[in-house]
Amino acid sequence: MADSEALPSLAGDPVAVEALLRAVFGVVVDEAIQKGTSASQKVCEWKEPEELKQLLDLELRSQGESQEQILERCRAVIRYSVKTGHPRFFNQLFSGLDPHALAGRIITESLNTSQYTYEIAPVFVLMEEEVLRKLRALVGWSSGDGIFCPGGSISNMYAVNLARYQRYPDCKQRGLRTLPPLALFTSKECHYSIQKGAAFLGLGTDSVRVVKADERGKMVPEDLERQIGMAEAEGAVPFLVSATSGTTVLGAFDPLEAIADVCQRHGLWLHVDAAWGGSVLLSQTHRHLLDGIQRADSVAWNPHKLLAAGLQCSALLLQDTSNLLKRCHGSQASYLFQQDKFYDVALDTGDKVVQCGRRVDCLKLWLMWKAQGDQGLERRIDQAFALARYLVEEIKKREGLELVMEPEFVNVCFWFVPPSLRGKQDSPDYHERLSKVAPVLKERMVKEGSMMIGYQPHGTRGNFFRVVVANPALTCADMDFLLNELERLGQDL
Amino acid sequence: MADSEALPSLAGDPVAVEALLRAVFGVVVDEAIQKGTSASQKVCEWKEPEELKQLLDLELRSQGESQEQILERCRAVIRYSVKTGHPRFFNQLFSGLDPHALAGRIITESLNTSQYTYEIAPVFVLMEEEVLRKLRALVGWSSGDGIFCPGGSISNMYAVNLARYQRYPDCKQRGLRTLPPLALFTSKECHYSIQKGAAFLGLGTDSVRVVKADERGKMVPEDLERQIGMAEAEGAVPFLVSATSGTTVLGAFDPLEAIADVCQRHGLWLHVDAAWGGSVLLSQTHRHLLDGIQRADSVAWNPHKLLAAGLQCSALLLQDTSNLLKRCHGSQASYLFQQDKFYDVALDTGDKVVQCGRRVDCLKLWLMWKAQGDQGLERRIDQAFALARYLVEEIKKREGLELVMEPEFVNVCFWFVPPSLRGKQDSPDYHERLSKVAPVLKERMVKEGSMMIGYQPHGTRGNFFRVVVANPALTCADMDFLLNELERLGQDL
Repeated sequence: MADSEALPSLAGDPVAVEALLRAVFGVVVDEAIQKGTSASQKVCEWKEPEELKQLLDLELRSQGESQEQILERCRAVIRYSVKTGHPRFFNQLFSGLDPHALAGRIITESLNTSQYTYEIAPVFVLMEEEVLRKLRALVGWSSGDGIFCPGGSISNMYAVNLARYQRYPDCKQRGLRTLPPLALFTSKECHYSIQKGAAFLGLGTDSVRVVKADERGKMVPEDLERQIGMAEAEGAVPFLVSATSGTTVLGAFDPLEAIADVCQRHGLWLHVDAAWGGSVLLSQTHRHLLDGIQRADSVAWNPHKLLAAGLQCSALLLQDTSNLLKRCHGSQASYLFQQDKFYDVALDTGDKVVQCGRRVDCLKLWLMWKAQGDQGLERRIDQAFALARYLVEEIKKREGLELVMEPEFVNVCFWFVPPSLRGKQDSPDYHERLSKVAPVLKERMVKEGSMMIGYQPHGTRGNFFRVVVANPALTCADMDFLLNELERLGQDL
Repeated sequence: MADSEALPSLAGDPVAVEALLRAVFGVVVDEAIQKGTSASQKVCEWKEPEELKQLLDLELRSQGESQEQILERCRAVIRYSVKTGHPRFFNQLFSGLDPHALAGRIITESLNTSQYTYEIAPVFVLMEEEVLRKLRALVGWSSGDGIFCPGGSISNMYAVNLARYQRYPDCKQRGLRTLPPLALFTSKECHYSIQKGAAFLGLGTDSVRVVKADERGKMVPEDLERQIGMAEAEGAVPFLVSATSGTTVLGAFDPLEAIADVCQRHGLWLHVDAAWGGSVLLSQTHRHLLDGIQRADSVAWNPHKLLAAGLQCSALLLQDTSNLLKRCHGSQASYLFQQDKFYDVALDTGDKVVQCGRRVDCLKLWLMWKAQGDQGLERRIDQAFALARYLVEEIKKREGLELVMEPEFVNVCFWFVPPSLRGKQDSPDYHERLSKVAPVLKERMVKEGSMMIGYQPHGTRGNFFRVVVANPALTCADMDFLLNELERLGQDL
């Protein structure tokens, strides 16, 4: 080889590395963090895909580029990206920018390790254990197990896989073909990952029995009981119920005590998908919404949503103390999980998961929690509820806004009824015309960059807005702005 | 509620946010980046778990902490973490710190969005498309599809799920019970995720037929042919072969052309797990190792490994142009993938995956590629091969070092034979005693913090070291250090 030197790249030049990273960090602070969270700036800078492609010059070429070009590219990426930490971003179940969580994420990236062994992730193996213990304590468990997963959907799949393995350990080796048809139960308001998971895990979507929900979106335990009986009558073996704490659209909480009673009677695994609502457990005032969760076998909880820990931070919590995770997922790879290591190999978490490399997702949550304490996080939850309540009361005061229902969580669902449709509820095309309003307003707000709110149809209801009140930096003024802006954007409709 | 103000946290105070983040960034640059990549510093600071718990004070409490305390915590987290970017970290298939990739990761974290819709990730939807197109072009495909997955294991699972769906589309709805027993084929040197995936997907590990590998770790195509015949004779339906380009321990490349011939004859889906070796496609000199990869149906390729893009960056590439990903994984959630959006909803990638929220994994790779160009990345690959070759030649020159085999990749596998065992190859307990050497040396190097090298038994071979030469900052001097240090640590054995 030509050299005993490193390549003539930044990698061998600590001064150049530092200069680059300081310059990029300056851009990040100015553009993504300061402007990105300032109400005086746009929440997004809409471009049509073809135009955006031109602006970004995405093509990867043979020659590398200069530092100035790279910095310019960083600025462009930030400029045309949606600012999810902005106080006018109400579009998803995550929003806001917690600076301590972001600090934890930057440290995570700079350390770039995998969570699978104590050997290369000693701090994070112990930290994950402690964070999971804390989350379990909030559920109501003094012991148990758990793991951070790449998203709530995969947490839900883990729960289904664990439940079937517990009942049929042979299935790990022999597969589903030798088993009777299995049935799992969830409400029609559940997250779509239950269906996706059933398909991926080889159960098939037909194995998902859809239980009725009441008009507020809560699972009806009597119908669950009925569906279980029906499945059994058809020769299927019920094995799991997935209840939801905080549904995606309406923010509904399933009645966990009653569902747990049903599961207990039938010997079924109770999984609670609390990806969205789990963080309410931090609030003494509101945690009653999850009463009964301590009776679950597994809980999925995403602190990247209501706690703003940053994507992704998804915990799967288990009441199990029999090492079910490792038994179900382990494969004892000899090159990674050597048994003759000089430390206690029970600390190696790699065989708890179906992945191999696994990102560190605990530090961002841990650092934020250290900075805020339980108390600080509880105040955030309580404030989100209070602001959602404020928004609801304002909606009731204004003409042309109609609540879908009184929310019990921080999803506020309502229609904007434009001037031309007010008082026309009885006209035959009212609902059809009303359903077309939200898409038009959405296009207008995005193209102006003034705010972002999601909308969707739901059951027999036409398109309505779902405002998610989650960003801890929000104030009543932001709620007022939101409603004023809708009125402004829709005044000619 | 008590206020129309934001909470008294940093979130409402841009000056305090900026001050905190600048302080943390200073710690990151000094401790994780400068010291963390300096050969004059330790690669790790070993502590026993109980002592480390005390040092870190992990408990999450009711009260929050001051900024000084938080900064102290950041320093401790970095101090006791393993420095995977350090030139003495040879322990995993990833190492090194690329500053542009890190810049991309910091921007990704600051923007904190999910890749599922064009609406909230316009830049990254288009960028992912472009990066995947580039990777596909290197495979040899002018069209196709693909997606970034949370790790290579899940990429491999995706491939298996897609292959079975293509053959039995009903299985998405009806599950595996109605299908004949399926068989997939991979060599005994394959990554353990194939077994884990078969269990998770409901196929069971029995469905994995283990094909022989030759003494260099390459799949034997004749045995593949034989195994397919055996499976069919047993009434199973072969549907997929998973070949490996760059096995985990030996770094072997399966003979893809011959395997593709077998797949073609039997109508089987050919998946290539090139998580480790895929990046060799960038090298004109070495890409012949993957000859035939263009005949695959799917390829898993992790740029977070040899290209040092940062965990995680795992692409699944498909030759398919029939929208198989969306058909197989889609569930058309109406609240996220509304069909009445004001832009082309084909841009929404969420229904290509089994997750819901999905991290942005393309920016770090894109930015690094823009800075390096194909040429810069090619030089890196070529340099890694050259340095591995240098290490091999040095090993041959020294007494007490014995190669497991001549490597064809950058995994250099060898035994350190300590003075007391030299010349004793014929003694009956030689192999047993030799196998105990690597764990002892590993403990010593980690406790001194001088370097980290993985070891493992393999087949009938006792523990040997596997040095992974991947960090782009490495030089011949680092190779010399490695061997000298082994001799120093093992001189009394």
